[in-house]
Amino acid sequence: MSNIKKEIPYKIYLEESEMPKEWYNVRADMKNKPAPLLNPKTYQPMTEAELGQIFCEELVKQELDTTTPFIEIPEEIRNFYKMYRPSPLVRAYCLEEKLQTPAKIYYKFEGNNTSGSHKLNSAIAQAYYAKEQGLKGVTTETGAGQWGTALSMACAYLGLDCQVYMVKCSYEQKPFRREVMRTYGAAVTPSPSDTTEVGRKILREHPGTSGSLGCAISEAVERAVQQEGYRYVLGSVLNQVLLHQTVIGLETKTALEKYDIQPDIIIGCAGGGSNLGGLISPFVGEKLRGEKDYQIIAVEPASCPSLTRGKFAYDFCDTGMVTPLQKMYTLGNNFIPSANHAGGLRYHGMSSILSQLYHDGLMEARAVEQTSVFEAAEQFARIEGILPAPESAHAIRVALDEAIRCKETGEEKTIVFGLTGTGYFDMYAYEKFNNGQMTDYIPTEKDLEQGFAGIPRFPGNEF
Amino acid sequence: MSNIKKEIPYKIYLEESEMPKEWYNVRADMKNKPAPLLNPKTYQPMTEAELGQIFCEELVKQELDTTTPFIEIPEEIRNFYKMYRPSPLVRAYCLEEKLQTPAKIYYKFEGNNTSGSHKLNSAIAQAYYAKEQGLKGVTTETGAGQWGTALSMACAYLGLDCQVYMVKCSYEQKPFRREVMRTYGAAVTPSPSDTTEVGRKILREHPGTSGSLGCAISEAVERAVQQEGYRYVLGSVLNQVLLHQTVIGLETKTALEKYDIQPDIIIGCAGGGSNLGGLISPFVGEKLRGEKDYQIIAVEPASCPSLTRGKFAYDFCDTGMVTPLQKMYTLGNNFIPSANHAGGLRYHGMSSILSQLYHDGLMEARAVEQTSVFEAAEQFARIEGILPAPESAHAIRVALDEAIRCKETGEEKTIVFGLTGTGYFDMYAYEKFNNGQMTDYIPTEKDLEQGFAGIPRFPGNEF
Repeated sequence: MSNIKKEIPYKIYLEESEMPKEWYNVRADMKNKPAPLLNPKTYQPMTEAELGQIFCEELVKQELDTTTPFIEIPEEIRNFYKMYRPSPLVRAYCLEEKLQTPAKIYYKFEGNNTSGSHKLNSAIAQAYYAKEQGLKGVTTETGAGQWGTALSMACAYLGLDCQVYMVKCSYEQKPFRREVMRTYGAAVTPSPSDTTEVGRKILREHPGTSGSLGCAISEAVERAVQQEGYRYVLGSVLNQVLLHQTVIGLETKTALEKYDIQPDIIIGCAGGGSNLGGLISPFVGEKLRGEKDYQIIAVEPASCPSLTRGKFAYDFCDTGMVTPLQKMYTLGNNFIPSANHAGGLRYHGMSSILSQLYHDGLMEARAVEQTSVFEAAEQFARIEGILPAPESAHAIRVALDEAIRCKETGEEKTIVFGLTGTGYFDMYAYEKFNNGQMTDYIPTEKDLEQGFAGIPRFPGNEF
Repeated sequence: MSNIKKEIPYKIYLEESEMPKEWYNVRADMKNKPAPLLNPKTYQPMTEAELGQIFCEELVKQELDTTTPFIEIPEEIRNFYKMYRPSPLVRAYCLEEKLQTPAKIYYKFEGNNTSGSHKLNSAIAQAYYAKEQGLKGVTTETGAGQWGTALSMACAYLGLDCQVYMVKCSYEQKPFRREVMRTYGAAVTPSPSDTTEVGRKILREHPGTSGSLGCAISEAVERAVQQEGYRYVLGSVLNQVLLHQTVIGLETKTALEKYDIQPDIIIGCAGGGSNLGGLISPFVGEKLRGEKDYQIIAVEPASCPSLTRGKFAYDFCDTGMVTPLQKMYTLGNNFIPSANHAGGLRYHGMSSILSQLYHDGLMEARAVEQTSVFEAAEQFARIEGILPAPESAHAIRVALDEAIRCKETGEEKTIVFGLTGTGYFDMYAYEKFNNGQMTDYIPTEKDLEQGFAGIPRFPGNEF
């Protein structure tokens, strides 16, 4: 550490020349690699050829690569990144002052693009490889709409067709998200729909259903396989997605190093795990290589506590049980958070990279209740100006808790957290909170047992 | 111009040390000063004391100051600016490539803050001076909600009470804007309301009314005067607002100079004029002092063409006729754009500074139709990634037209335009466009005559 301290600005921006030219593949430094995806029929690892029927070739390679530490970011993707990146690493001076804490608080803000979140980092990569392969288009599902928006933007830029299956209740409740995607030229279909076999089947069996992410995934996968020149893409959970998201962590690390800042605690929210994995990978790499140590905290909703209360087991990635099996912390593929949950991060499982790291003690996890999350969101918005996405506010909650703890102990810890996005399309949840109508729910042991019952049983999948 | 050209990045950010420390008061360099505000009863210039009953003392001084060229930005405001500024000056490399134009296109992007626009630049200044004066709070009106949001944010930061009268139809149609304001602690009242005399009167006379900006202004002014320790604030039109918004132009100028860029054309959209005035002031200053020349273009909607078809005359700033008289290009205070107008910039008049500059030939104006504006918005969003506010897209329209003209003529002009904000809360307008339901309307001469009939007649106000 240099003796002459540079004055740290409110926002640290990198120069274009300092932006990452390679993604970092943390699996290369992991002694215990994440377990491979399994074919749900044979229980054998999915081959490149099998995965290639659903995903783009180059993305399959990235999915399966556990040894190459750095993977080049193609120039066209780097140029696209330059349109909305580098994202700022913000010193939360105002927050520190209001809290009267000796802690130093930083956040990496990924919300300054029209998709409103970090999702665009992987969307452009996945769309790029689809185009390179000469495909006509891609299919995907979207729940809240962040991923669908990001993919629409990437496809519009590259001139690729984009078909989005949007969970029907979101399609109806969030017409503005839908219109953003349509403005970017995407075809948005409410799911379940009559455009797929699985959709028609569900409509027959449950005529009044408002859809689910699991059903939308199944429709998107079917539609990709049905059409010549199409593949399916996914916005989180997969290794390839975490790989692309390491631009977040790499930029953060470079920005910190520019000002000789040593973080003590790194915090991120965790749903499927893409943002957290991307943020922490380069830091975890240092831990794995024995170079440095950090306290790393994954924050999840108490109503969907996959890391803190789930099982480490093979499970389906979707509730429709059409995807390969993935070893991960899971609440069971049919687990759905209680109806009063409005805070996002509703995914039943967790990326296998993060699951393995957590299992190996390289990071810890905390579950927080949504009213306390929205309290943190409101406080942060009023002091730091940015209205956060409910998902991001999970990380804010724990960052505030840690900063307040520092005030009590007098410790001058340096806290870095990921602010993944903005809440501009989540105002229905804020409205609930503003009206005092938000409640909490913690699943009972019985709720969890019901979820666990859905995890497939087969030899080697003991939990 | 230096011989060694520096490579220009996608986004030019200033260092904190390069951010403006003073606002620039273009009136100091104007030979023909904008005409003073008049008392509508006496037709005499409004005095400091008269204005001080409605506005904060320091803001009244700024409103009346036509001679001081630079006015210091207080440190607390500069620190707030550092949270969301400097805004980037973006080189639209992707747009240039797609258009295959030899023109160089830049835009100053003001949308990366939760208010979604440049409005925050003046909101924090006005809230700051209210607090310095020891006031308890401020009142204002909002239509679409950008200004109300910005003011709520500024008041939350400073711990000031914020009362917003929101035009009733907006209050009902844009519940998310309302919730953002509430999240920042503002009290939002649909206007007309029963909290003011003028509101009760209008409700009695027009029980089913969905409100108007004019009525909301009247209510906000009445409420400010009614309550001890409150003043009224306004988000555009006034000289003070243009003054605060010069941070946009000053940052733009510094960023251009860093890379030896000489703009030929500067373009901005114009409603009340705050963003355009802020962007162009430093450049107009150079024109006024005879140092440089630029082509400056104000862009307005063809359905609300105050500059291109209005009268240069004294008129009320509101449709309720409670404000002082201002000399400006106006369509008449009771002019309302046709019902099919969804593109924003609906104000009947224009800031008196800009009106005088236009009258003196220092800038030109163009009126564009809204379908062509949304076409430009969609094209821009798909290529440059940012979904623009409909208002901002007026500037995009003319920037595209000029870039295409350069392609035809082979001229390598440098175009700079103001991208004032994002369209995330304007998706109802985009939906209309996406569904092919958007239409245009150009007011007939008869429509205009009806508006002009509302302009007050008195000796000296010939038009």
